[in-house]
Amino acid sequence: MSGPIRVTVWNEFRHEQEEDRYREVYPEGIHGAIATGLSAHADITVTTATLDQPEHGLSVETLENTDVLTWWGHKAHDDVSDAVVERVQARVLDGMGLIVLHSGHHSKIFRRLMGTTCNLKWRVADETERLWVVAPDHPIAAGLDQYVELDREEMYGEFFDIPEPDTLVFVSWFPGGEVFRSGCCFARGRGKIFYFRPGHESYPTYHSPTIQSVIANAVRWATSSGGPAPVFGNANPLESLPAPVK
Amino acid sequence: MSGPIRVTVWNEFRHEQEEDRYREVYPEGIHGAIATGLSAHADITVTTATLDQPEHGLSVETLENTDVLTWWGHKAHDDVSDAVVERVQARVLDGMGLIVLHSGHHSKIFRRLMGTTCNLKWRVADETERLWVVAPDHPIAAGLDQYVELDREEMYGEFFDIPEPDTLVFVSWFPGGEVFRSGCCFARGRGKIFYFRPGHESYPTYHSPTIQSVIANAVRWATSSGGPAPVFGNANPLESLPAPVK
Amino acid sequence: MSGPIRVTVWNEFRHEQEEDRYREVYPEGIHGAIATGLSAHADITVTTATLDQPEHGLSVETLENTDVLTWWGHKAHDDVSDAVVERVQARVLDGMGLIVLHSGHHSKIFRRLMGTTCNLKWRVADETERLWVVAPDHPIAAGLDQYVELDREEMYGEFFDIPEPDTLVFVSWFPGGEVFRSGCCFARGRGKIFYFRPGHESYPTYHSPTIQSVIANAVRWATSSGGPAPVFGNANPLESLPAPVK
Amino acid sequence: MSGPIRVTVWNEFRHEQEEDRYREVYPEGIHGAIATGLSAHADITVTTATLDQPEHGLSVETLENTDVLTWWGHKAHDDVSDAVVERVQARVLDGMGLIVLHSGHHSKIFRRLMGTTCNLKWRVADETERLWVVAPDHPIAAGLDQYVELDREEMYGEFFDIPEPDTLVFVSWFPGGEVFRSGCCFARGRGKIFYFRPGHESYPTYHSPTIQSVIANAVRWATSSGGPAPVFGNANPLESLPAPVK
Repeated sequence: MSGPIRVTVWNEFRHEQEEDRYREVYPEGIHGAIATGLSAHADITVTTATLDQPEHGLSVETLENTDVLTWWGHKAHDDVSDAVVERVQARVLDGMGLIVLHSGHHSKIFRRLMGTTCNLKWRVADETERLWVVAPDHPIAAGLDQYVELDREEMYGEFFDIPEPDTLVFVSWFPGGEVFRSGCCFARGRGKIFYFRPGHESYPTYHSPTIQSVIANAVRWATSSGGPAPVFGNANPLESLPAPVK
Repeated sequence: MSGPIRVTVWNEFRHEQEEDRYREVYPEGIHGAIATGLSAHADITVTTATLDQPEHGLSVETLENTDVLTWWGHKAHDDVSDAVVERVQARVLDGMGLIVLHSGHHSKIFRRLMGTTCNLKWRVADETERLWVVAPDHPIAAGLDQYVELDREEMYGEFFDIPEPDTLVFVSWFPGGEVFRSGCCFARGRGKIFYFRPGHESYPTYHSPTIQSVIANAVRWATSSGGPAPVFGNANPLESLPAPVK
Repeated sequence: MSGPIRVTVWNEFRHEQEEDRYREVYPEGIHGAIATGLSAHADITVTTATLDQPEHGLSVETLENTDVLTWWGHKAHDDVSDAVVERVQARVLDGMGLIVLHSGHHSKIFRRLMGTTCNLKWRVADETERLWVVAPDHPIAAGLDQYVELDREEMYGEFFDIPEPDTLVFVSWFPGGEVFRSGCCFARGRGKIFYFRPGHESYPTYHSPTIQSVIANAVRWATSSGGPAPVFGNANPLESLPAPVK
Repeated sequence: MSGPIRVTVWNEFRHEQEEDRYREVYPEGIHGAIATGLSAHADITVTTATLDQPEHGLSVETLENTDVLTWWGHKAHDDVSDAVVERVQARVLDGMGLIVLHSGHHSKIFRRLMGTTCNLKWRVADETERLWVVAPDHPIAAGLDQYVELDREEMYGEFFDIPEPDTLVFVSWFPGGEVFRSGCCFARGRGKIFYFRPGHESYPTYHSPTIQSVIANAVRWATSSGGPAPVFGNANPLESLPAPVK
C-alpha cells in the first residue's frame, strides 16, 4: 500500500432513523460511530454508505476505490439488491477486505460468502460479554488485554452455522450460559473476511475505544497484501514445460 | 447408522448420450460406473439420478432418503434449476454428505456451498496424474498407497479458488508443471463435503478400482455422524441459568 | 479393523491411592471408571496401565497391541520416564490414537506432541461446566445434545497454549467468566489425538454416561484408518518417472 | 513496532567452510546471502549467528533482541545444544518469529515445535522447482507471480511429516513426479513460524531476488503483532465475577 487504507463503512441505517432510543445511542448512525473510530488512525481514510442511497451507496466506482468494506445490517437484509450483493462478492474475491459486524451475520453478502445459513442463538437481556483472545499472536489482537469486556450486549450463542474459521481470534462468554466464536477470519479468493460479533443497536459498543481498536486492527489485516492475480482457464500447452530433467 | 448408507449418484448424463466417444468409455453413463463401484460394498446401497429426469431426479423425498449424494456435471451446470440447488444445499446443511467430482467444481451447488468462483486452470493433453496422500491418517486414504496414479487425465492446476479446506487429503502432480489440491474436505452446517478431482469424461477413471475405493471411503466419511441438531433463534430466558456459584 | 478396538487406559493412579477423598469418588481408580465406561461397547476391548507398574505399564509389546491410548495424569508428570514418552510419541506418529484427558494437558507426552507449553488458567470452585458442541457433524459429537453439562468441575480457562486444533469440537463455558477450547482434534504423523477437558480427580465426571459416551466416540475416531505408511528418505531416481507426455 | 524489525540470520556454516564447491556458491556463507537480501529493506536490520560461535551465537541477550530468527542447518543438527534449543523454543512461544529454511526441517528446534519427525523424501538431481501460490491473499505471497520457478533445486517430496499447517502458502512441483507443501505457516504460543522449502547448499537459491523477497515477506509476517501476554495458573477467585445478570 502506498497511500492510506480506503475504508467504506456501510450501514443499514434504519433503526437510528426510525426510533429515538437507537438514535440516542448513535446520533450520527452506527456508521458514524464506526467511521469516527477509524478516522482517528492516520493510515486509514473513511467514507460511509447506507442502504437507502442509490445502489445502496456501493456503486462499481465506490467499490473499486474501497480497500476494506465494513458491513452492519439487521432488519432490512432483504432490501439489499442481489445485484449489489453479487458486485460486493466479486470485489471481495478480487481482493477487497470485508468486516462483517454483529447482526450482519444474516446479511445476504455474508451468507453468500459462507455458503451456510449463518444462523445462531440470541437473547437481549443486558448481559455482560467477555471476548477472550484465543489467538494472541494474531494481528487483530494487537494491543489488547487477555479479554475485552463489554458491560451490556446482546447474547449470541452457539451453534453458529459458519464454516470452521481459518483462524479463530475471539471466543465470547455470556453470563446466561452461552459461548460464541465471536472473532472469525476467513480467506475467500484473494479477499480476507473478518466476522466480529459485538454491536447491538441499543448498546454503545461502537463508541468503545477498545472495540474501535479491534475494528482498526481488522481493517489493516483485511487489506490486500498485493499477492498474485490468479490465472484461470485453459492453461499453456505442453511445449511451455520446464526444461526436461537430465 | 443402523442400515446401509444410502447413496444417490447424480450425473449430468449429456456427454455420454450425445457423443459416441464418451459412450464408449462409459456405456452405462458416468453414473453407471460410479454406482457399480459403490455397489460392490455391502454397507452401501446405490440409486442414480440424472439431469433430464423430473426435478433432475432429486425430489424432496429422494433427498430425504439420501445419506450421501455424489455429483458429476460439466457442460450443463446452468440447466440445473435454482430450486433444486437450494433444496440440495439445505439438505447438506442438515446432514447429507456431498461428494463433488471433477468438473462438478463449477456446479451451482458447489459454488454456492463454497462462496467462491471455484475457478481453476485446465488442459486436456493425456497427462499422467499422481495424487499424493498428504493426510495419511484420514479415513479417505484408507487402504491406499502413498500415491494414486492415473495414466491419462485432464490436468487441473492451481490456483483453485476455494476456501482453504478443513483437511487436505490429496495433492495432484501433473507432468506439465502444475499441482492441484485434489482431495478437499469441508464441513458445512451438519454436512460433510468432499471434492475429488479426477474424472474427465473421456478417460476411464471411474472404472479404476482404486478410484472407486476412494469414492467409497469418501461416502463413509461423509455419512452423518448423528450429532446434535442445532437450536437457533431466541434462546431460553435467563431464569434457565445453571445454579449460581457458591 | 477386523477385530475390536484395543484400548489401553493409562492412569497416574496416585491421588486415589494416597487420599480417601479421591478414592471415594473413584474406588477402582480413575482408570477403572474409564475402563468400565468403554467396556460397555462391544466394539472396544480395554486394558489398563498405571504409572507405578514396570515401564509404567507401557512396554513395547503393550503399545504394539494398543490401537488407542487414553492418558490421565496430574501431580506426577515428571515421574514418567523420557524413554517411555519417546516410545509413546513414536507409536502415535505411527498410527496409535491418543486421548489426553483433563490435567493430562501438562503431561510430557502431550507437551511433546504439541510443541507448546500447554499452559492454561484454572480454579477449583465447584463450578458448573457446559461443553457446547461447535462441530455438530464431527464423529465425536455423535449422539449428544447441543451441549453437555456437568454440575461441578474444575475450571480451565483461556488462553490454552496449544496449536490451533485441526478441528474444534467443544467450547466450554464456566460461570466464573471463562471459556475454554475443551475438545480439540489434532493429526500428528499417522496418529490422531483428541484432548478432552473434563475430569478433575475430586468430581465423578468419568462415571457420567455422557462423558463415557464422548470418550467412546473419541476412541472410535482416533483408531487408525489404515492409510498408507509414508516412505521417507532418498527417493527413487529419475528413471522411474511416469511416461513422458506426448 | 516502532523501530525496524530485528532479524538474526542463523546458519550452521559448515558446508561452506569445509568444501570449495559450496563456498563458491556462498562465499559469505548461506547466512551472508540471506542477510544481504534482507538488508536491502529499510524496515529490517540484520545480524548473523553461526553454530560454532559461543552458545551458537544465540545468547539470552541476542534472542531477547531478536524479533525474527531464520534458521538454516543440515549436517550438524545434533551439534546444537539442547539448552539453546530450549531457549529458542521458549522465545518463540513468547513471540519471536521463526523462519525455518530447507534442510532446517530436521533441526532440533523445528522438530520440537512441530512434535513430529518432520521426515520427508528427497533427491538431488538438478531438478526445476515450481512453487505455486495457493493462498494468493497471504502476506507472504505479496508481489509474487502465480508461481516462483527455480532452475535447479534439490527435490523434497510428500509425505512431509508435519502437523497440518494453519495456512498453506506454497505447493511445489518437481519434474520427477513429486509435490511438496513448501510454504507452511504455524502459530505456536505467541510466536509465528514459517517453513520455506528451497535452499540446498549447492544451488544459488538465496541469491535469487524473488526468494529473498519471500523471506522478507515472511519476516514481516512473523514479527510479533503485540497481542496480549497470556495469564496462566490459578485464576482469580469467584468474587471477581462480572456483575450478576438482572
